[in-house]
Amino acid sequence: MKRLLIFLVLASMTLASAAQGRRNFARTEFPNVNDDNSVTFVLNAKDAKRVSVVGDFTLANDKDQRHFEMKRNEQGFWSVTTPPLRSEIYSYNFYVDGVRICDPKNMMQLRDGENFFSSVIVKGDRGDLYEVQNVPHGELHSVWYDSPTLNMSRRATIYTPASYGKGKQKYPVLYLLHGMSGDETAWAELGRTAQIMDNLIAQGKCKEMIVVMTNGNAWQQSAPTYNGGRAMQHFRNRQKGEPTFEESFGDVIEHVEQNYRVIKKHQYRAIAGLSMGGGHSMNISRLYPKTFDYVALFSAASRGFEDAQVQTSLKTQRDNGFKLYWIACGKDDFLYKLNLSYMTYLDSISFPYTWRESDGGHTWRNWRIYLAEFVPMLFNE
Amino acid sequence: MKRLLIFLVLASMTLASAAQGRRNFARTEFPNVNDDNSVTFVLNAKDAKRVSVVGDFTLANDKDQRHFEMKRNEQGFWSVTTPPLRSEIYSYNFYVDGVRICDPKNMMQLRDGENFFSSVIVKGDRGDLYEVQNVPHGELHSVWYDSPTLNMSRRATIYTPASYGKGKQKYPVLYLLHGMSGDETAWAELGRTAQIMDNLIAQGKCKEMIVVMTNGNAWQQSAPTYNGGRAMQHFRNRQKGEPTFEESFGDVIEHVEQNYRVIKKHQYRAIAGLSMGGGHSMNISRLYPKTFDYVALFSAASRGFEDAQVQTSLKTQRDNGFKLYWIACGKDDFLYKLNLSYMTYLDSISFPYTWRESDGGHTWRNWRIYLAEFVPMLFNE
Repeated sequence: MKRLLIFLVLASMTLASAAQGRRNFARTEFPNVNDDNSVTFVLNAKDAKRVSVVGDFTLANDKDQRHFEMKRNEQGFWSVTTPPLRSEIYSYNFYVDGVRICDPKNMMQLRDGENFFSSVIVKGDRGDLYEVQNVPHGELHSVWYDSPTLNMSRRATIYTPASYGKGKQKYPVLYLLHGMSGDETAWAELGRTAQIMDNLIAQGKCKEMIVVMTNGNAWQQSAPTYNGGRAMQHFRNRQKGEPTFEESFGDVIEHVEQNYRVIKKHQYRAIAGLSMGGGHSMNISRLYPKTFDYVALFSAASRGFEDAQVQTSLKTQRDNGFKLYWIACGKDDFLYKLNLSYMTYLDSISFPYTWRESDGGHTWRNWRIYLAEFVPMLFNE
Repeated sequence: MKRLLIFLVLASMTLASAAQGRRNFARTEFPNVNDDNSVTFVLNAKDAKRVSVVGDFTLANDKDQRHFEMKRNEQGFWSVTTPPLRSEIYSYNFYVDGVRICDPKNMMQLRDGENFFSSVIVKGDRGDLYEVQNVPHGELHSVWYDSPTLNMSRRATIYTPASYGKGKQKYPVLYLLHGMSGDETAWAELGRTAQIMDNLIAQGKCKEMIVVMTNGNAWQQSAPTYNGGRAMQHFRNRQKGEPTFEESFGDVIEHVEQNYRVIKKHQYRAIAGLSMGGGHSMNISRLYPKTFDYVALFSAASRGFEDAQVQTSLKTQRDNGFKLYWIACGKDDFLYKLNLSYMTYLDSISFPYTWRESDGGHTWRNWRIYLAEFVPMLFNE
């Protein structure tokens, strides 16, 4: 007991001395979202010469502002309070004399490709959809499946809805694919998939479904965070003749349909992907005929449609029929014109699709919005 | 296609200019584990005045060295190569002019309480046990369970062995508890539980089992990384009269036994925990009579045994009988003497236990070693 007391005394002394330098900040935690949706950032860096916060912020008046200079107080704490921000989940870093770091006081870190960011949710609207709310929660499973096509065991992330463990019901499946430099962790972490699904299901806005988030890098067994830590410099394009991720997709479908209670019918399968994963969705949905009744291309790298074989398979896909082919892209996206070209081709063969043009560019903000818009349209009879 | 070409050209220019400054480092990735098990660390920080790497390193000659100064080259890249290191998984940070950061070139980050570390595996011996090897992989499930006792939904991490999906077999269960400032992610991330279990099972060194990693902070639904990002300053002790984590433990057992194929017998249940979780294991195993035949206390906060009620329940636990009560602690641990005192008391009531004294202190290195030693002793008939 004495030992515990000593420990607690030492611990509280440490906290007290840290709090000392922060007394100007009224002992709140940082980043602190204030009542008016402004956010206060603080960093303890007494030897630094310049500190700023850089993130994907949008002010309440809808203007974007990426950069805020921070000011030093006497104790060496740097701080800034932004103007009121729109409700959103934001990613940011501090720059300390030119070195980019995460916020050491914020446990919520996200990795986007090779880069780590701190993140903060401003509640009230869209941010609420991305937050863990007091609703029934689905589960996230880090699974491995055998891919005979790629000759390796591969990792995937699978979301099962809250009711999955409670009965014998069978579920529809959405296959959800990441972009270049992403992996099987991207949609769950950056895309807030579990929170979006939990919240939309609880609001009665979408059907219960299983969401399968694969690793779309054919040469890679799993996310680099999981083993080895190697960066995307190990990214490589497939060599001529090597099987592609798209060609291996039957392996993951087979794993899911053998191991989960799913409805094995095209009416109950959907596939969606962003950027490179949008290209994958385009290819997989035409390469696996009568498999997916719902397809979505988010800011898609929808390349290759000039190819005669691709055109033949797109015509077959059109003739087979489907419920929804949804193409979403932001006006500032570097792939915007490619998407327009692809739709021009689809028009020329009377391939039915729905076009969703948005503001903004090639960003996770848009992909979260597209996901939240797409899933309510799925599996309605 | 033209757009793709432009993109690839721009991307390769960026990579080329980065590689330029790194030509002295022969284009390998960093941290680089060299053939002699030395490790080379590199950081690009041209404006910094002093950069060092600080980690829990052990040299090949068994001496610990925490700190290595780094040297700047003409292009502003700082680097150092350690002497050969023992095989292990190491955690480290860079200090850049006094600011602690993770290695921006290393995707493998770990969080220990409020602090993020980069990590690197030196292969050859113990490091091999912590690496994802080419063996069948179990799955990690992020689940939620209802706790009526604590009146909330709570998150847990559950490991199921590779064979779990392949048959109808029932499995024994190990409940594995974290320490103060940890949460339901600690054992899987810092403890490398999935890798240790996969590798030991593949080597035939331990039985297949399910491992349930709870969140032992009674006031906390889930890890702060999962929602909100609040640091452990939100740690609070329970108020008098509030139910404890130990008292709520029946809720997680019930969830596991209702939702997984497990053997519901005391011969097939084990509980182990580190530090605060060691105290939890001590308490839960005596509060739930005839429930656990295997108990392990790793560097345990095994407090409270002077209390008459506790002593009565320990005597009941002794009389009920069990297979193994394993107490492990390092000689440098601040809880070492507490563990000796606890064992003196256990001796006085002829409570059978096995004592495992190790080198070192209150570290994840020791807890990984203890886990790898403990699980082979479980569920042998």
